[in-house]
Amino acid sequence: MEGLHILAEFGQCAAVEAMASTRALEVLCVSACREAGLTVVGQLFHAFGLPAAPAGATGAVILAESHLTVHTWPEQGAVTLDLYVCNFSRDNRDAAEMAYARLLEAFRPVDVHRRDIWRTYPGLGPHPEKV
Amino acid sequence: MEGLHILAEFGQCAAVEAMASTRALEVLCVSACREAGLTVVGQLFHAFGLPAAPAGATGAVILAESHLTVHTWPEQGAVTLDLYVCNFSRDNRDAAEMAYARLLEAFRPVDVHRRDIWRTYPGLGPHPEKV
Repeated sequence: MEGLHILAEFGQCAAVEAMASTRALEVLCVSACREAGLTVVGQLFHAFGLPAAPAGATGAVILAESHLTVHTWPEQGAVTLDLYVCNFSRDNRDAAEMAYARLLEAFRPVDVHRRDIWRTYPGLGPHPEKV
Repeated sequence: MEGLHILAEFGQCAAVEAMASTRALEVLCVSACREAGLTVVGQLFHAFGLPAAPAGATGAVILAESHLTVHTWPEQGAVTLDLYVCNFSRDNRDAAEMAYARLLEAFRPVDVHRRDIWRTYPGLGPHPEKV
């Protein structure tokens, strides 16, 4: 269950449609994962606000490798995302980087704040080299 | 979009059913959020392995306040969870603590590794006091 968890906050995003349209957000998130070689086993997206006054969306893509979750605030031009990939049967860090790059490219933020968290089994300690 | 993101890894969990049964996991996660006063707007749970040989589950609970995601490895007695609550209209940190405590009590881990991440809008910097 060792794995990489990328937490990112994006500000001043140029991609209004991907933030305001739940369908566009879903297509983006699922395709970003699939194109990176991650295995999508389900997805759930929820729109906030009314159709005439969208107030962002939250989406979760369940992966065999763990998950991607995204929250959008189109009125603030902001997105937060989490991409967590475990290295259970192979090293998925390159796939995570590829999916993250696709999302970054799609949202086109001016401000990017990314933190990488290495998650591991309690008691084992961090093993960033273990795959 | 400021908010608290709790990342936790649990080891040597005693609660086998909650880890191996996707339905039990879903009931636990949804009720932990609801009982804490968080607003569940959807959930998606996926079982790995075969019914005769369950290999854990992944679940996502979409909240109006953000999300809860849980991954279980019953064969290792391990769970990772993420509980992310934004303070958009009110301070949800107490609700997050209540839901986390309910999950901790349910999984009964021997080893607990918890990290709290304060997430905020890029450019604003951290505002742990802002609600």
